Amino acid sequence: MNSCSETIDDEQRHAAARSLSVAQSPSDGMSLIAPQPGSDYYRAVMPTDIPDRALELRTEVTPEASVRVFLEEVDVPRPVGGQVLVRVEAAPINPSDLGLLLAGADPAQVRKEGTPERPVLTAPLRPEAFRAVGARVGLAMPAGNEGAGTVVAAGADAGSAALVGRTVAVAGGSMYSQYRLAASGECLVLPDGTTARDGASWFVNPMTVLGMIETMRAEGHSALVHTAAASNLGQMLQRACLEDGIPLVNVVRSEAQAAILSGIGATHVCDSSRDDFMTSLTTAVTEASATLGFDAIGGGPMANRILTAMELAASAGAPYSRYGSAVHKQVYLYGRLDRNPTELTREYGMAWGIGGWLLPNFLAKAGPETVTRMRDRVAAGLTTTFASSYTSTVDLAGVLDPAALATYGRQATGQKYLVLPNG
Amino acid sequence: MNSCSETIDDEQRHAAARSLSVAQSPSDGMSLIAPQPGSDYYRAVMPTDIPDRALELRTEVTPEASVRVFLEEVDVPRPVGGQVLVRVEAAPINPSDLGLLLAGADPAQVRKEGTPERPVLTAPLRPEAFRAVGARVGLAMPAGNEGAGTVVAAGADAGSAALVGRTVAVAGGSMYSQYRLAASGECLVLPDGTTARDGASWFVNPMTVLGMIETMRAEGHSALVHTAAASNLGQMLQRACLEDGIPLVNVVRSEAQAAILSGIGATHVCDSSRDDFMTSLTTAVTEASATLGFDAIGGGPMANRILTAMELAASAGAPYSRYGSAVHKQVYLYGRLDRNPTELTREYGMAWGIGGWLLPNFLAKAGPETVTRMRDRVAAGLTTTFASSYTSTVDLAGVLDPAALATYGRQATGQKYLVLPNG
Repeated sequence: MNSCSETIDDEQRHAAARSLSVAQSPSDGMSLIAPQPGSDYYRAVMPTDIPDRALELRTEVTPEASVRVFLEEVDVPRPVGGQVLVRVEAAPINPSDLGLLLAGADPAQVRKEGTPERPVLTAPLRPEAFRAVGARVGLAMPAGNEGAGTVVAAGADAGSAALVGRTVAVAGGSMYSQYRLAASGECLVLPDGTTARDGASWFVNPMTVLGMIETMRAEGHSALVHTAAASNLGQMLQRACLEDGIPLVNVVRSEAQAAILSGIGATHVCDSSRDDFMTSLTTAVTEASATLGFDAIGGGPMANRILTAMELAASAGAPYSRYGSAVHKQVYLYGRLDRNPTELTREYGMAWGIGGWLLPNFLAKAGPETVTRMRDRVAAGLTTTFASSYTSTVDLAGVLDPAALATYGRQATGQKYLVLPNG
Repeated sequence: MNSCSETIDDEQRHAAARSLSVAQSPSDGMSLIAPQPGSDYYRAVMPTDIPDRALELRTEVTPEASVRVFLEEVDVPRPVGGQVLVRVEAAPINPSDLGLLLAGADPAQVRKEGTPERPVLTAPLRPEAFRAVGARVGLAMPAGNEGAGTVVAAGADAGSAALVGRTVAVAGGSMYSQYRLAASGECLVLPDGTTARDGASWFVNPMTVLGMIETMRAEGHSALVHTAAASNLGQMLQRACLEDGIPLVNVVRSEAQAAILSGIGATHVCDSSRDDFMTSLTTAVTEASATLGFDAIGGGPMANRILTAMELAASAGAPYSRYGSAVHKQVYLYGRLDRNPTELTREYGMAWGIGGWLLPNFLAKAGPETVTRMRDRVAAGLTTTFASSYTSTVDLAGVLDPAALATYGRQATGQKYLVLPNG
């Protein structure tokens, strides 16, 4: 549901794609399957388990305005210094991953080519979609925003070496790979008893949820409004808000979705499909004293409605002012489920703001102390507050199955695939 | 031009309206025209000049959905403690004053009633306008956001007593009055040689200009985009930016307006009536490295265009990212020349924001040190950088002349009235 919030550091991935040839061709000629325990460069457990070559999923936009998704056999990189090599065991397919994989192509137009062992999906790009991804043409980009697995080798730095054998979660792209190099500092070490599958979706939804709460506190608000609230992320946010005692106004678009949230203890649930939506939203916003909203929809009138409700709440009983209440009302758009323009009628005074919200931008601004606190809380809650569930699992080739794509490509609430790159 | 930026503290004015009866009825029975030099309460120069009763303009919304603008004869208040009494000699009619005076009525529908000495303007309110000012019904509100005059009496506090005889500028409402009580701390003492007429428009436009520059610095930007840039305020902003070496992109809507700005030294002027507007805007924003805009228009596509140009500038030459550049791009809407909805296509990544901007809200956030610095700079520049010019002067009864209203009510660029409450 939360297309844009799902983090992705494309520049980092881009840089990674460019540097692959270097990383995969160690200039000193040391064999990747002959680790040298105790050397300055490289140590590994389970050396016989580490293959010479491994598979990685790639997505490429061609000059002919189509996108190709395929598997590439690459040299398994060798960690040095502060790096570790992670055997990726689980990585979810998020809407933001789909955006990168398909480059805006229609999932219904995907065709399967190649061989059974090396399938290739292709799909045409409409002119506007092609224009939007012009900078990608000819780049075979790796994909997969987040995942988890086992550290099977490490550079010589003490911090990395200590991770060998541990189950860790990683984000930042390239997770649809059998093996992925990571900086030891970016690995989230999972608590004992938490599996790679438990930890695969550690970043996109959980860190977004905590990023919303951190934003709320940093900007002086005390309650939240959230749209598309029955999503996986929305339920997670409700659980975290219940833990923290934060009033949360959930906006959903059906009775069935309302029931999901009520079922996990939500107090405020407003159904936008009902005629009395604005009344119920205003009541809920008033009761919660909510002056900050996170909107996954983006387009259309929703953000405007939230600001309107907040202003009605803020100005109720206050003396007349032509410029509305002085209480700052803010809505962040973190997704774009509706790609139509956002319409602002501005009937909520002058103390309001709307803006984009993107997890990596937030994390960069928040600083390492806050990020560490967030990561630690996620790690502790991966099987409870921040648990994700999946409807299917596939291996890397399975991602390229048009039938599977038809399901996960719909981005329907409750449909989530988990990729097991090592089967 | 800058309807909403023009400051007005309606709550304060509202409170003032309520407390008038108290302020005007000193319980100790001391006569207002018999000041007692050296007493603890009250000192004055020119005692014979201070009348017992004086005129004040009032605007009232009636339960019958009309607005009445009239003159009220009131007791001249007596300053105590830290207060001073200002004989108001000049107060401009700003668009925001009009908003309060007419409560949204159409200037063309105004009728004159009353007597020649006590004229009353009335105008019907459309239902939506009436609804919007429901909280005003039955309140005879004073008006006039800013002005200047001479301190003719003061309370016993040293700070206030020292102001007697000085020419001061005041803001905060009730300036369409012959005499106005003010806290000595809110008075801006004008430099020798600066007249009340020079200082009358000290607050709304000059403080908005400096507030924009302060906002730019506080939020980490280094250049500005400004719309409706040929306005009085826009020219002032250009002069201040030239003084400070701040690159400013001026958006205007005609060749004639462009010429005005070029004539005062503007480097970047983009004419939105031209076919190549987006190209010229993008070029100017790129050259200026502008990531902050102040938009007086509010509705329609302008804010969206500015953000689009900023993103084109920020992402030029950068590697591909699905989420756009990480450079934060901000547009503040400080006016509503266009009352249509603001349309956001959101094709500028995720690092962007739009919001309302109101001078009093900014000043409250900026704190006294910043506000003092701004006031001092305005005082020093009232006959140069922050000079205003007027097309006509009227006395208080002249404000109620339908012919004058037809002119100042149009809010046309270059048409500005100055009220001389004491003739």
